Amino acid sequence: MSDLTRTTAWAALQQHQHAIAPLHLRDLFARDPGRFERFSLQAGPLFLDYSKNRITDETLTLLLALARESQLPEWIERLFRGDRVNGTERRAALHTALRHRDHSPVLLDGTDVMPDVRRVLDQMRRFSESVRSGEWRGYTGQPITDVVNIGIGGSDLGPAMVVSALDADCGPLRLHFVSNVDGADLSLTLRRLNPAQTLFVIASKTFTTQETLLNARSARDWFLAQAGNPSHVARHFVAVSTHRDEVVRFGIDPAHMFEFWDWVGGRYSLWSAIGLPIALAIGMDRFDALLTGANEMDEHFRHSPLARNMPVLLGLLGVWYTNFFGAQTHAILPYDQGMHRFVSHIQQVVMESSGKNVTRDGRPVSCATGSVVWGGPGTNGQHAYFQLLHQGTPLIPADFLAPIESRTPLGEHHRVLLSNFLAQPEALMRGKTAQEVRVELERAGLKGDDIERLLPHRCFSGNRPSNTLLFQKLDARTLGALIALYEHKTFVQSVVWDINAFDQWGVELGKQLARDLLSELSGMPARAPHDASTSGLLDHVRKRLPSA
Amino acid sequence: MSDLTRTTAWAALQQHQHAIAPLHLRDLFARDPGRFERFSLQAGPLFLDYSKNRITDETLTLLLALARESQLPEWIERLFRGDRVNGTERRAALHTALRHRDHSPVLLDGTDVMPDVRRVLDQMRRFSESVRSGEWRGYTGQPITDVVNIGIGGSDLGPAMVVSALDADCGPLRLHFVSNVDGADLSLTLRRLNPAQTLFVIASKTFTTQETLLNARSARDWFLAQAGNPSHVARHFVAVSTHRDEVVRFGIDPAHMFEFWDWVGGRYSLWSAIGLPIALAIGMDRFDALLTGANEMDEHFRHSPLARNMPVLLGLLGVWYTNFFGAQTHAILPYDQGMHRFVSHIQQVVMESSGKNVTRDGRPVSCATGSVVWGGPGTNGQHAYFQLLHQGTPLIPADFLAPIESRTPLGEHHRVLLSNFLAQPEALMRGKTAQEVRVELERAGLKGDDIERLLPHRCFSGNRPSNTLLFQKLDARTLGALIALYEHKTFVQSVVWDINAFDQWGVELGKQLARDLLSELSGMPARAPHDASTSGLLDHVRKRLPSA
Repeated sequence: MSDLTRTTAWAALQQHQHAIAPLHLRDLFARDPGRFERFSLQAGPLFLDYSKNRITDETLTLLLALARESQLPEWIERLFRGDRVNGTERRAALHTALRHRDHSPVLLDGTDVMPDVRRVLDQMRRFSESVRSGEWRGYTGQPITDVVNIGIGGSDLGPAMVVSALDADCGPLRLHFVSNVDGADLSLTLRRLNPAQTLFVIASKTFTTQETLLNARSARDWFLAQAGNPSHVARHFVAVSTHRDEVVRFGIDPAHMFEFWDWVGGRYSLWSAIGLPIALAIGMDRFDALLTGANEMDEHFRHSPLARNMPVLLGLLGVWYTNFFGAQTHAILPYDQGMHRFVSHIQQVVMESSGKNVTRDGRPVSCATGSVVWGGPGTNGQHAYFQLLHQGTPLIPADFLAPIESRTPLGEHHRVLLSNFLAQPEALMRGKTAQEVRVELERAGLKGDDIERLLPHRCFSGNRPSNTLLFQKLDARTLGALIALYEHKTFVQSVVWDINAFDQWGVELGKQLARDLLSELSGMPARAPHDASTSGLLDHVRKRLPSA
Repeated sequence: MSDLTRTTAWAALQQHQHAIAPLHLRDLFARDPGRFERFSLQAGPLFLDYSKNRITDETLTLLLALARESQLPEWIERLFRGDRVNGTERRAALHTALRHRDHSPVLLDGTDVMPDVRRVLDQMRRFSESVRSGEWRGYTGQPITDVVNIGIGGSDLGPAMVVSALDADCGPLRLHFVSNVDGADLSLTLRRLNPAQTLFVIASKTFTTQETLLNARSARDWFLAQAGNPSHVARHFVAVSTHRDEVVRFGIDPAHMFEFWDWVGGRYSLWSAIGLPIALAIGMDRFDALLTGANEMDEHFRHSPLARNMPVLLGLLGVWYTNFFGAQTHAILPYDQGMHRFVSHIQQVVMESSGKNVTRDGRPVSCATGSVVWGGPGTNGQHAYFQLLHQGTPLIPADFLAPIESRTPLGEHHRVLLSNFLAQPEALMRGKTAQEVRVELERAGLKGDDIERLLPHRCFSGNRPSNTLLFQKLDARTLGALIALYEHKTFVQSVVWDINAFDQWGVELGKQLARDLLSELSGMPARAPHDASTSGLLDHVRKRLPSA
């Protein structure tokens, strides 16, 4: 592809931004009664209102032209049909096959991957039902009560998020997630558990991930300290991996290894066997519903026209703010306490996918790519960081998400939640003028200097953009659709920016340097000289390390 | 103050930025062997290395000149001596008095506040000891096993963070924190609790916070459903508030109201009676140690020369990146699993304090203020968002924090953690050149086109700045110092930017609009017309709300 910033579509958007920048959303709404109807749409269980964005019909026309100039429709087709869209690793990114629901084949190099996918799903069903029903027994003959997933990154964030969103402690098993190599994570988790009734799921694609294997070995030590006989390991440890040899070497029965494939990226792996803890927590039927919801979004993404395509619209709006308004962040604000881990998962999906500074063919990018995704559940954020959203200087586009119906209805709580959920995007958009503040302060009995002193501090510029996503209830299907929505949105942006959304070379250098530093922390000489800061810190630490 | 961006110091920094921008940190280290010694310092339990910043001695000289031009020393003195630094609300911000440790007075309008401070600390000690020892009994005569703190924003984030960092489930009480008005938060917390052994701490400055009072009333309903007699409420509910009347109206014995004062801002309130759940979790002696650590940082901040003053240096470095490199975010990366809530607390401190777009005297600011604070515990982040830190396009200054010694030592875990902790800032700083990548790929046996294809994707530009903060162990004193460090850093930036760090008018508009929307959700007519988007969303929701 030619340089993005030299395309006609890009130049037109830059021109157009000068026309849009001075317009206030208040006025755009005032002069266009059809704005909400035109700038909203339903896809499966999700309703999106994007009318509170700093756009006009022309903006969308130009953004869609940019998408076409980037060959977005072709790339969407390449993604779904198993092309090696991950060019640097020469791999497909076929997570959509994991949630493919009908009986048509999904070909990868001419071979249908679906028989393998279904085989592992069947294995997950049998295993999760056996553990959940109590048929599966630990080494003392007791049923399993607690499951500890040991994994990191994609082998942790996705499953942990779905379990906390959907489980609500109702199932027969308690799920725990250990990821950090900090020993506190494992130690504090195990403190309350009984080895005879604990099942460990060790999740690592290569089965060599440093953190995961160290945690897995410490967990095995803890287990054997009570169980004694290493042959018991097979009843209490199962693996999710692509590397059978390493799994067997650990002591895990290969019959209890759950496979996935090199065309499943870590951050898209919750749909694969990496989702095993989800199946254990909520049962395989609801895991299937999760896949169905994602599949509905896949179908919508693949077949809807760009102008009525939810991931496409969200992706292009992101490009609009990142590249034409200089926004470096994007806030995701779910008004659902169960979604308190949602942001962390999407943060990985977005930031690992779009944190790239070369194009697919290796040229330096000529514009900003990616953004920092952050946020958290409302209404909590309103009492923490919303001050900066309302009166701060940076432009921060935000997505507000909420279920219309609560899963745990309690008096007036959900109506109060929804009233806040509706009020915040309204406040961000309309703001409050000096005239409005003046009237309010006068009504409150303030006079003269007091009014003048407070007035500027109590004004809100407004014109701060947001999307609103509504759904009936946060069930498995809806959550599946939501996650897939953000996955595809991220892909859309990667296509526009001409970057590879599916590799992550940026994590390698730190790993390499850590290996050297680990041996130096243990007293070995440096293999290569460090800068003075790293050496100085290493000395500082070494002098103060407790003796082993 | 005159317009910041028209000062001599500002202009000099702008000039200087052009000189610094092309310099690589690798080269700065190579040509200056004393860089680490010069750009590092100890304050109390904290060691800061700031040598991996894109600065030279001249940068610091110019930043310090800006600080002096902003009258920073005078403002520090005003803060500590109880001046009404919160101009819009005409209040002092005397959180430093809460951790004042010697017997000298702290005057506010000529009156020593310390007798009041000590009276409440004594009350907290008596009460927490009585509950922890089991002397305090519930209505059935059983001791308390679970404490539920109900509060939001500053009445939640600070205490919850300190408890999760220091408690580690060792004490006699289990602590729970409910903040969100989403009924799931309270319902799922109460599901496992026994009313007869549960104590509620209702924390709200005004005792009218919508979320907190609704949660408190629902908690009281849950309690009375079993306890029956409303007179039992007094044994199971205590309050932290400034409003006695409201507290009594709720049914709480005023003897069990823990007072604080209007000179304690919400985001600085964990040092006050808002810290009661901390005292209940870890005991009053360790709460005292927390105050002592904060006080050490206060003394350092008040009395150290600007050039060797940790909060001042961190604050100015933040200004450097925000205003001269266009950074909109700041990452905080503690390598300690117990600190997984640290970022959320500091996020509130920073974003609520600096999310302002008018100066103290009400003029629009002429430069960016504030930034989005985000992050989370390492090593987890390395497998999630670090890709964008290493190879993304935006400049993201980062703070790396770690304890040299683990509180829960477990085999090799802590050394592995520390090796990663040291490696990441090194990797961000030095990067990896094309030549280095080429050698590596050749060694790995790659050839010709394969090397050329991969090369650009595996390069790291480096030159990405970070601070490193080391401390021996995460104990109460150290955590106190760390929190106070970020509080004062935030104050330093507010002084440079000439904004009020202590008000938060930006949260008001959303609250007002939510009131109207709540009555409309319940079927009342609109008091004022909404924009088409808000009306449309309201309709969409109303049609789908389950009947009450």
